[in-house]
Amino acid sequence: MARPQRLSGFPEWLPEGQVVQQFIEDAARRVFELHGFGGIETRAVEPLEQMLRKGEIDKEVYVLRRLHADERDADAGLGLHFDLTVPFARYVLEHAGHLEFPFKRYQIQKVWRGERPQEGRFREFTQADIDVVGRDVLPFQYEVEMAVTMAALLAELPIPPAVIQVSNRKLAEGFYRGVGATNPASVLRAVDKLDKIGIEATKRLLEEDAGLTQEAADACLSLAAIRTPDSSFVDRVRSLGVSDPLLDEGLIELAAVVDGANLLRPGSVVADLRIARGLDYYTGTVYETELVGYESVGSIASGGRYDSLASDGKQTYPGVGISLGVTRLVSVLLGRDLVRVTRPVPTVVLVAVLDDDSRPSSEQVAATLRSRGISCEVAPSADKFGKQIKYADRRGIPFVWFPDGGGHSVKDIRSGAQAPADAEDWRPPEEDLVPRVLTTTSQEAQP
Amino acid sequence: MARPQRLSGFPEWLPEGQVVQQFIEDAARRVFELHGFGGIETRAVEPLEQMLRKGEIDKEVYVLRRLHADERDADAGLGLHFDLTVPFARYVLEHAGHLEFPFKRYQIQKVWRGERPQEGRFREFTQADIDVVGRDVLPFQYEVEMAVTMAALLAELPIPPAVIQVSNRKLAEGFYRGVGATNPASVLRAVDKLDKIGIEATKRLLEEDAGLTQEAADACLSLAAIRTPDSSFVDRVRSLGVSDPLLDEGLIELAAVVDGANLLRPGSVVADLRIARGLDYYTGTVYETELVGYESVGSIASGGRYDSLASDGKQTYPGVGISLGVTRLVSVLLGRDLVRVTRPVPTVVLVAVLDDDSRPSSEQVAATLRSRGISCEVAPSADKFGKQIKYADRRGIPFVWFPDGGGHSVKDIRSGAQAPADAEDWRPPEEDLVPRVLTTTSQEAQP
Repeated sequence: MARPQRLSGFPEWLPEGQVVQQFIEDAARRVFELHGFGGIETRAVEPLEQMLRKGEIDKEVYVLRRLHADERDADAGLGLHFDLTVPFARYVLEHAGHLEFPFKRYQIQKVWRGERPQEGRFREFTQADIDVVGRDVLPFQYEVEMAVTMAALLAELPIPPAVIQVSNRKLAEGFYRGVGATNPASVLRAVDKLDKIGIEATKRLLEEDAGLTQEAADACLSLAAIRTPDSSFVDRVRSLGVSDPLLDEGLIELAAVVDGANLLRPGSVVADLRIARGLDYYTGTVYETELVGYESVGSIASGGRYDSLASDGKQTYPGVGISLGVTRLVSVLLGRDLVRVTRPVPTVVLVAVLDDDSRPSSEQVAATLRSRGISCEVAPSADKFGKQIKYADRRGIPFVWFPDGGGHSVKDIRSGAQAPADAEDWRPPEEDLVPRVLTTTSQEAQP
Repeated sequence: MARPQRLSGFPEWLPEGQVVQQFIEDAARRVFELHGFGGIETRAVEPLEQMLRKGEIDKEVYVLRRLHADERDADAGLGLHFDLTVPFARYVLEHAGHLEFPFKRYQIQKVWRGERPQEGRFREFTQADIDVVGRDVLPFQYEVEMAVTMAALLAELPIPPAVIQVSNRKLAEGFYRGVGATNPASVLRAVDKLDKIGIEATKRLLEEDAGLTQEAADACLSLAAIRTPDSSFVDRVRSLGVSDPLLDEGLIELAAVVDGANLLRPGSVVADLRIARGLDYYTGTVYETELVGYESVGSIASGGRYDSLASDGKQTYPGVGISLGVTRLVSVLLGRDLVRVTRPVPTVVLVAVLDDDSRPSSEQVAATLRSRGISCEVAPSADKFGKQIKYADRRGIPFVWFPDGGGHSVKDIRSGAQAPADAEDWRPPEEDLVPRVLTTTSQEAQP
């Protein structure tokens, strides 16, 4: 067969890139578990009617059918999930009788969207989500915890500075009502386009589509321009002279999130009233995250509070969550050369083989090293040592072990230094034990 | 919405089940990396023509289309991968210029098959694969290494005894030729059905479909009955009086795999000449793995040598691999109650909150514990302590931390024992640090 074509929008990394992706997934899992989130996985498919209930993304869903499906196929009407929030809400409803609430979970999986691929936007990508869902009630404190947990994770990653931008749907909706909007959702949709289409076009949308007066449209644009590193946004909103009970509630909540998060993680969060989030299931706090200097790739961690995503008619399961865009982040780190990896293979040592008869003793050395947590391989053929060293060099393995008759020795093939060694107590330098991710400013990512 | 229906063939675990699956995936990754396999991921989709080139499973593939696809859609003709070997072969061809050979990789991902669900057979399931691929040549030694690496992994899992059964396509094909078969593939297909349809029906297939004489059919069935824990199968095959150069080659290879693997991992491998493997891309050693006492669920780890799966016309990339059926294994462990999990949440300690004003000092305790690798949560509300203890108890969190004015203390809510504690040096008992997987005979799985 001919060399296969790359599929646009379906990224795959070389082994070095996978080391970076694995580093991020490991960090996410470690930080999430330290904060009390347990892992689950949901199936990749959901009934279409379930997925299309919420959001404006029906055109982006991939539908499945079996190649030789017959008419009565039970798989008909299934699609690949486009996020991990809708499947999680379904999981909670399906398994509610077996779960304890509030239920805190993390989930690191691929999702699919049939969108036009561009930088930072893929058809298949990995997300790392945390959510907390309560039964009927969910303490507000979790809206602070989402920002704090994500900030803790971002601080461990080999990335440029990141800022979590927070707003609040109640604040926005209350304000829009306060200026006389009869359809706050259409105002939100217009404001959501601000970054893309600019102030003038947004103003036109606000007046023509959302039916606002010129004055009301100006007030909404003034609201969207407010961005503060603390709760001083409250006074700036108040100075716009709009009042509404829902606006008051939103102001109090947003101030609590910004101040609460910055108390624990100073500088991690800003209030940014431009943040709207496209998906219409959010009902309170909403989050987006900017990678400073790389804003054009879009948000790398987003989410919000949702009160009615999961409900079985008798009970509702309000939740709040935030999702790290793992693939987007890896693609920026690799695409902009922001990181490098010390080697592409886990192997620290190639154990050489003197001749076919002595292979078992080489295998014994390898078994001992592995039992001590040192990754190694035994040379596949008893070639001349020079050829075995070249094999290690070519594959990026830093050490070669020689199990000679006279006594074992190990050679660092980068420096050429060779020294006697015993498999029971030899250790590589700590920085060689596993492949590491370094930022290109040479500062090592903290494992 | 009404409570969602479970989808047959798309298993999902409760949090306890996910702890088991994660344990297996972590063990696989650790063992694979210690043996020098690096991780990669491939996209979930492949062009249909690529997938249908090999194997007899075209009817089982899920085809994708975008919900609002137009005629010229670039996604047309994509399906979900049904294994990780075919995508890996495509990855090798696509990225060959950037890889070093032999290329050793592991891959832990979901795959999809539109099969009729039954015990141990799913429509969506996770596999953990290792493969080694060479450029033009691949040393035979890797066929031993596959069995040894998988045996090392199986020995670390909380499962009943497992035996890797090995056979060899050259041995079988040479033998079939030696008895006069003109179409060895049809003989192989008949023998592959032996377990399912029995000796008599297989014999009919051999005579009628494969065109063997009665004597030749008997010889093939005698071959399939040979199973030995060592290389004594060679004499038993020889005693059947068939000779062929390819048979000789296969006998030597199979003896080398069985003896080589059992030298390093005594008792892990048997020669079993009944093993055929359905997929037609195998060309040498083939592996299947029986869970002793649970044979009916099918093989839990399978694979083999393939010489021409990946070829771009100029170069071929022969490989050998073996794949652990993670979902199948988890479903047996959970479905037959072979394991239990010590708790469903990662959290060791709930840090109580005295009142809203003192929340920051509770958060400080939590931050200190987390920096020392201890998973904890801060209570979401400053309820009465009794209510906070119930919150921990209900969710399975074993310890509650009280940051009282007079001095901190920690309570084991299982025993009721309470003692003064300092977040800088308190540690839970080692067995409480993370959720553990225990076999139901109470023997702990080795982490």
